[in-house]
Amino acid sequence: MNPPDSPREACGVFAISAPGEAVARLSFFALYALQHRGQEAAGIVTCDGRTAHVHKGMGLVSQVFTEENLAPMTGHLAIGHTRYSTTGSQRLRNAQPHVIETMDGPLALAHNGNLINAPQLRRELLERGIGLSSSSDSEVMLHLLAGAGGPGVDWLTRIRVLMARAEGAYTLVLLTREGVYGVRDPWGLRPLALGELEDGSFCLASESCAFAPIGARMVREIGAGEVVRIDADGRYQVHQGAAPRQPAFCTFEQIYFARPDSVLAGRQVHRTRQALGRQLAREAPQPGADLVIAVPDSGTPHAIGYAQEAGIPFSEGLIKSRYIGRTFIEPTTALRQARVAMKFNPLPGNLSGRRVVLVDDSIVRGTTSGPLVQLLRKAGALEVHVRVACPAIRHPCFMGVDMASHDELIAATHSVEEICRHIGADSLAYLTIEGMMAALTSDDELGGDLGTVPDDMVGGYCNACFTGQYPFESVPVELGRKDVFDGVLADADQEAAAAAPVGLRP
Amino acid sequence: MNPPDSPREACGVFAISAPGEAVARLSFFALYALQHRGQEAAGIVTCDGRTAHVHKGMGLVSQVFTEENLAPMTGHLAIGHTRYSTTGSQRLRNAQPHVIETMDGPLALAHNGNLINAPQLRRELLERGIGLSSSSDSEVMLHLLAGAGGPGVDWLTRIRVLMARAEGAYTLVLLTREGVYGVRDPWGLRPLALGELEDGSFCLASESCAFAPIGARMVREIGAGEVVRIDADGRYQVHQGAAPRQPAFCTFEQIYFARPDSVLAGRQVHRTRQALGRQLAREAPQPGADLVIAVPDSGTPHAIGYAQEAGIPFSEGLIKSRYIGRTFIEPTTALRQARVAMKFNPLPGNLSGRRVVLVDDSIVRGTTSGPLVQLLRKAGALEVHVRVACPAIRHPCFMGVDMASHDELIAATHSVEEICRHIGADSLAYLTIEGMMAALTSDDELGGDLGTVPDDMVGGYCNACFTGQYPFESVPVELGRKDVFDGVLADADQEAAAAAPVGLRP
Amino acid sequence: MNPPDSPREACGVFAISAPGEAVARLSFFALYALQHRGQEAAGIVTCDGRTAHVHKGMGLVSQVFTEENLAPMTGHLAIGHTRYSTTGSQRLRNAQPHVIETMDGPLALAHNGNLINAPQLRRELLERGIGLSSSSDSEVMLHLLAGAGGPGVDWLTRIRVLMARAEGAYTLVLLTREGVYGVRDPWGLRPLALGELEDGSFCLASESCAFAPIGARMVREIGAGEVVRIDADGRYQVHQGAAPRQPAFCTFEQIYFARPDSVLAGRQVHRTRQALGRQLAREAPQPGADLVIAVPDSGTPHAIGYAQEAGIPFSEGLIKSRYIGRTFIEPTTALRQARVAMKFNPLPGNLSGRRVVLVDDSIVRGTTSGPLVQLLRKAGALEVHVRVACPAIRHPCFMGVDMASHDELIAATHSVEEICRHIGADSLAYLTIEGMMAALTSDDELGGDLGTVPDDMVGGYCNACFTGQYPFESVPVELGRKDVFDGVLADADQEAAAAAPVGLRP
Amino acid sequence: MNPPDSPREACGVFAISAPGEAVARLSFFALYALQHRGQEAAGIVTCDGRTAHVHKGMGLVSQVFTEENLAPMTGHLAIGHTRYSTTGSQRLRNAQPHVIETMDGPLALAHNGNLINAPQLRRELLERGIGLSSSSDSEVMLHLLAGAGGPGVDWLTRIRVLMARAEGAYTLVLLTREGVYGVRDPWGLRPLALGELEDGSFCLASESCAFAPIGARMVREIGAGEVVRIDADGRYQVHQGAAPRQPAFCTFEQIYFARPDSVLAGRQVHRTRQALGRQLAREAPQPGADLVIAVPDSGTPHAIGYAQEAGIPFSEGLIKSRYIGRTFIEPTTALRQARVAMKFNPLPGNLSGRRVVLVDDSIVRGTTSGPLVQLLRKAGALEVHVRVACPAIRHPCFMGVDMASHDELIAATHSVEEICRHIGADSLAYLTIEGMMAALTSDDELGGDLGTVPDDMVGGYCNACFTGQYPFESVPVELGRKDVFDGVLADADQEAAAAAPVGLRP
Repeated sequence: MNPPDSPREACGVFAISAPGEAVARLSFFALYALQHRGQEAAGIVTCDGRTAHVHKGMGLVSQVFTEENLAPMTGHLAIGHTRYSTTGSQRLRNAQPHVIETMDGPLALAHNGNLINAPQLRRELLERGIGLSSSSDSEVMLHLLAGAGGPGVDWLTRIRVLMARAEGAYTLVLLTREGVYGVRDPWGLRPLALGELEDGSFCLASESCAFAPIGARMVREIGAGEVVRIDADGRYQVHQGAAPRQPAFCTFEQIYFARPDSVLAGRQVHRTRQALGRQLAREAPQPGADLVIAVPDSGTPHAIGYAQEAGIPFSEGLIKSRYIGRTFIEPTTALRQARVAMKFNPLPGNLSGRRVVLVDDSIVRGTTSGPLVQLLRKAGALEVHVRVACPAIRHPCFMGVDMASHDELIAATHSVEEICRHIGADSLAYLTIEGMMAALTSDDELGGDLGTVPDDMVGGYCNACFTGQYPFESVPVELGRKDVFDGVLADADQEAAAAAPVGLRP
Repeated sequence: MNPPDSPREACGVFAISAPGEAVARLSFFALYALQHRGQEAAGIVTCDGRTAHVHKGMGLVSQVFTEENLAPMTGHLAIGHTRYSTTGSQRLRNAQPHVIETMDGPLALAHNGNLINAPQLRRELLERGIGLSSSSDSEVMLHLLAGAGGPGVDWLTRIRVLMARAEGAYTLVLLTREGVYGVRDPWGLRPLALGELEDGSFCLASESCAFAPIGARMVREIGAGEVVRIDADGRYQVHQGAAPRQPAFCTFEQIYFARPDSVLAGRQVHRTRQALGRQLAREAPQPGADLVIAVPDSGTPHAIGYAQEAGIPFSEGLIKSRYIGRTFIEPTTALRQARVAMKFNPLPGNLSGRRVVLVDDSIVRGTTSGPLVQLLRKAGALEVHVRVACPAIRHPCFMGVDMASHDELIAATHSVEEICRHIGADSLAYLTIEGMMAALTSDDELGGDLGTVPDDMVGGYCNACFTGQYPFESVPVELGRKDVFDGVLADADQEAAAAAPVGLRP
Repeated sequence: MNPPDSPREACGVFAISAPGEAVARLSFFALYALQHRGQEAAGIVTCDGRTAHVHKGMGLVSQVFTEENLAPMTGHLAIGHTRYSTTGSQRLRNAQPHVIETMDGPLALAHNGNLINAPQLRRELLERGIGLSSSSDSEVMLHLLAGAGGPGVDWLTRIRVLMARAEGAYTLVLLTREGVYGVRDPWGLRPLALGELEDGSFCLASESCAFAPIGARMVREIGAGEVVRIDADGRYQVHQGAAPRQPAFCTFEQIYFARPDSVLAGRQVHRTRQALGRQLAREAPQPGADLVIAVPDSGTPHAIGYAQEAGIPFSEGLIKSRYIGRTFIEPTTALRQARVAMKFNPLPGNLSGRRVVLVDDSIVRGTTSGPLVQLLRKAGALEVHVRVACPAIRHPCFMGVDMASHDELIAATHSVEEICRHIGADSLAYLTIEGMMAALTSDDELGGDLGTVPDDMVGGYCNACFTGQYPFESVPVELGRKDVFDGVLADADQEAAAAAPVGLRP
Repeated sequence: MNPPDSPREACGVFAISAPGEAVARLSFFALYALQHRGQEAAGIVTCDGRTAHVHKGMGLVSQVFTEENLAPMTGHLAIGHTRYSTTGSQRLRNAQPHVIETMDGPLALAHNGNLINAPQLRRELLERGIGLSSSSDSEVMLHLLAGAGGPGVDWLTRIRVLMARAEGAYTLVLLTREGVYGVRDPWGLRPLALGELEDGSFCLASESCAFAPIGARMVREIGAGEVVRIDADGRYQVHQGAAPRQPAFCTFEQIYFARPDSVLAGRQVHRTRQALGRQLAREAPQPGADLVIAVPDSGTPHAIGYAQEAGIPFSEGLIKSRYIGRTFIEPTTALRQARVAMKFNPLPGNLSGRRVVLVDDSIVRGTTSGPLVQLLRKAGALEVHVRVACPAIRHPCFMGVDMASHDELIAATHSVEEICRHIGADSLAYLTIEGMMAALTSDDELGGDLGTVPDDMVGGYCNACFTGQYPFESVPVELGRKDVFDGVLADADQEAAAAAPVGLRP
């Protein structure tokens, strides 16, 4: 199946220090809840203060881990990772966490993000006579940490050295002999949250949805530039690792990436998405419509919000297949529409004779929207009005999201009218940037315990994919760096074939 | 993960005769759409009028078939099957279609259902000196077909001989040298529908949802006791293979099994489920409630119907994990709730401070409802009122559905009040049988092109699991027959380990 | 790698009844010793008098069985099988033993040989209305056994019915609820031996080499047409199942197939092969030669005999690679000789400047001999005289040995002089039929405890591949029957890909 | 199966520069011929002067490589490796060659040997702030090479820096952008030979047996401390990388490791082994014996030499199973002897009533000899006289051979008489050191083209395992270093389970 027409996220991380607990098992359940942030590979490292144990593999968390391989992973410290490749390569040796030996014992690192100055950092390491065995940012950061200061220098100091040098998006978790660390870059591009277990020890996760399955409660979100250390006793301290920069939290975490039950910027994501949908209804109403439906599943919260605000009934118009697996079987010419019909099943009983508002969370390449509109019409819909709960995406991302290249972004090269014609809709409207920011930052009538947006998030978003204004002074001309390196070292390891991920996010 | 608390279906079938078409490929896309009817194994047999080609395997349709193994499957005739074991065994040799050589060429068979007189039929075959190599009903039916009449007897005659002897639920597709056949048992227990491709040739499928992905349109549902022959030119004829009996279409196809976009008994299933939800709202309203939510995904149509009828807002209160895979990792004692929390994620932002109606399609063992109610309360729900869109299930099924044994059915041994206390709900109500039958058979205000229920389906349902009144005169005392045979032949083939199905229907 | 230029054998069988013993484990060790008779697949069935347990798989015995899959195989009765396909198909469903249910409980069968009247027997079964699900002779024999007589008829009677109908080579072992059976066809084409365990219970094996690893001693070879029953107490009785026919034990078991430490026709095979080599030295001496070497490993005993008789030193001239695995990597044009050089490594230190006699056990296609002669010359051999320890093979085998078709047999279409020129040898000589029979049947100076050849084996060999005189009145015109059936049912099961055998007999 | 009672070797290496040739394919055939030096893993790296391509995997060479994974490995430079772990760990990430990126392009390294000062070198790298991701010597050497000098320093200079620092056994092949290199340590502990292809380009291999399958001829053995560079045009130059030290070529390469058709120290190994056998016959004759037999296969050349010198007939007394695979099935108590009986099959026909000399190449733990003597007696041998073609092994090896720990070496703790009693032989004799050195270094009556031993090898052997005199000033107190590191980083990667080697050297 073609890649879904959605941006793709680059990883989930988790860290825990909990004396007396089965930390590998807790990490497993936490990673299971972070599965939506990466389905290519998964890994866990544990440490008992002296010895590090690692298990990694290709595939879903549930495929990688078994009772047998979790059992020997002893210790009270652990970090974990779920990976979605930003480069398209599927290799076990790129699976994280990465682990090395240093003069101060084992050091493990797991990473969500992308360094935009990695080429310079690589060159410096190579010039210091260090050979690099992979194309990953993680190896670069491990060597920077291992070589910062000298033997015996404490890890917090080393992390500060790294943060002074690294530019880009990076939410990190680290494991050392004496504790685990969480690091959020000074721009706050990728999320990180602190949780407290029932026994009073602490953990860190990319999203708060990882806390419930392990019986933990959310304490707070980690701020831009902060470093959290959880020591061997499970107690935490927060340090400022680098001065925060202009805050630039990724808007797409709110719109699409995060799980609806996670809390981001102080509010549950499902409610934020309803707020976006309501704002969309205010900006782009469709008075005579009979029915609001979503592009499931990611567009459903926005559609519910739209329907509520517009006072139009919400129902299901498209059912999404739950057993997609991945298939590479090509349909015959006669079946050109089979692809989208395999994934989305229209409900003529609900659609026939209706004027329909179809709410989607975003449009990237525009490859899905056209076939969906056709499916709805064929199922009897009289009119199909497409509403998109974010602005038009016109610029690529260099901060760890695999959106598409500039030329692949339909809104980079087409006007809204052209796109509307292209997808065959009766009307098409995107949310405005202003409306989106209003919905993201102002409290609304649904407010409650989980509804207060912190002041520092007002306006503190990275909207580069909509505006082209990146949070960094110098933006890479191209993303080709990795290709250059892959040109130098084309790995054909059989590992790639070992396990294909299934059940990719629909 | 434990088996989900839902009845489990026993297979999907497909058949096609389409000269000049890539019938194996079409079968693949059709089976992909029937994946919800069985995830254990899948198979296709094609025939060019002389030679039969078969490919079967354990796992999802997308895992079993590749361009490589589809390529050699030539011919203009094909049948296919997706299997969910009713016995719990996962063995490639039980995968269907089964193929044998007969004096009149190859004969392939795929089956959805369960013969209740299989033990007698087996005994007769054994007494005729035929050795049986499996415990499957399909082998029994193949030998009955192969031995009926004698060499040269036409297949329709043989099918009639089989139908005169077989008692129970059986929707069959057959492949011979000269055409494919579809057979629906005289009680009409399991569904079967006829479709027409764009080129005017025909196909048969368990559900009409298989037609759209291959560009076909539904012609009609096959009646009880009918035999459809599609000849080598792709033309079809309908014969009465056996006199129809008291119609007994499985109610659970309507409530749970069928895909919402399929058409059963003349109406799209999603609309039927909305009608059930509306009837439930009339029978068991909850006036002061703030919110109607579903147990996703199967309870969503019923909940939408309930909300519409009750005039209470519908929203999402539980998000269902999309990457479940299967895991056998045991949570620690502290994580007793992890199981259900891994699968269903509550949305406190929507639930906090609300009085909630939770609509479920059915309750079988009652193992999921209790933890769900707790999850909702923990997420801040003030009240949780459970509404079930079918009556209480009190009797096991012998017609091909793996519900549970009598003792496992919570409603067989507990009153509604006891169940309500057991699951910790503020109130609990089931739909009445009369209300269910009214919703299943009467047209309602949503009516339209797809809304006319055929007369012969009025009252023509098997409700044995609710009432204990089975459509057959003699009901098996026990389901143990297969265990006896498994006792005789305990197969430990390595095939079982080869491929584990993933993404099982939640 | 190309198939080795050797005939290929069609299976090894084993049976045991030993109350109180771990019969599955004993079967494992016995099959391990019979591995040379078939590397494609292996299987074991056990029975406790009521329940049958089966495990089969593709690959070597050591790959198919593990502690985990042996553990549940309880009971006091067992049969086992190692398979080398005679048809070239590698399919798990052709793996033996085959097991069926009959009115008298489970029946399992494992087979070494080939029925020449299988097409007629198949046709009869099909006409009786029995569908056949494979192309194997075993399924035919199972149905003949299941249908012979009627319910309750004892198994010995049924076996006699089978033996009255079956024509061809068949050494069978059977497992029933009340004992195991060994059957040798009336011509005695394939071997079968009886062994006694230390606890006084009994077992049967294709070759006596299976006895030592399980602590058993050889009792005697089973005669042509005999049926041995070992009852549930481990005691045995011998019956004449069919009148013996003109004895026709396969000469190639003596020349090549059997393991050198097995006893056949009363003498250890290694000694028989030395006798063949000595006879060859008498018939075709090479007076001026410096050195006798073998084509290892199968030609070594013959070469040792030749060297002793000729009074010429024996040494190694070719080392055989022990890690061959199977590779399908094609050598470049420049490496045309790589194939044989990968398998056989010449020893110039021993060969340089010498006149060498190269003894081979047999020549089938003649594809290996030429490259070997060249290798020896390149390593410095002055002269290479090839001596073959059997007559020229001019006729195909229909009795279970996959030699080659008539046209592939080099001696069927070339004179000895032409072959000598073709392989580039200085001289070439085959053993005469008379000389071979003398060596096979007369006691010689090496005689001892294991050296007495039974009277009934004098002259009692099948030499059809040398003479064209088959032991049956009607010989199949072609071997194509299976192809016809494969044409009807082309199985593309994924099982084939599951496991590739390695370490094929060099 | 238990580890065989033999020392285990630690790797084979190969390098080639051949413009216009399929170097990956040639490397495959060369590694196939070096399979006896390591069956755990295999790998090849190629380079076209800019890009490096690597493929590695667990298992035999024939299992790791396919046409598919060889095809993309383009270029004119290649190195390859077969690995036998010295630490017992089976991990893909330890598979070689290792590849890194440096400022001067890709650098790949494959290694046979063991550095005894690796702990010091690791410590230095860690103190320089370099993190190490494995426990392998290869990573240490790669970082030493990458960091030697600075950007632009030529590779020969860097290799000299490495050789000045590394202490221990190391035969290396390196691949860079501009050529391949072969390095032999200053003691000459492990072998390395230069070959010339038919097109005039050159290659390097651990043993000359790798040359024949790729159509190459041996040019010469590489001397201690020499560095051979083969440039991009396929031309070679030899440099002295470090001053040679007291020559210390591993005696066990001659006795056991090397393939019999390889040439070491100027003579074909099979002839050297015959010379050892003849010397053994002179030192320890057994006048009244009837028969000389070998422990196959490795003892056969020694036994042939013994038989010739003693004038006693050589024959086979034990047949070695060719399909051993690896099995972990435990024999029952009654089958204690099954292990050795599965591997070695006695020939009573040859042994019965005879007085037998059993020649073995070496005895390490003494676990096989006793059961073998028993097997021979049970097969009828009247007397069994064991003769060992090397001295008693009393000291562990630190130079890359996995012999056993001191306490496991039977001769370290038992006298010859005690060992003779322990194994139940009628007599036991080892070769003397003086006799061994005489046989290794003096030309004998078999002399010929391949028989001249170079002067510098007279006395130039490492006999530390016999004498305890190691070639280094400081000998590691313990081999535990790797265990310490494994304690720090216990890798449980799933890779280990991916592929189990089969057909291990018996």
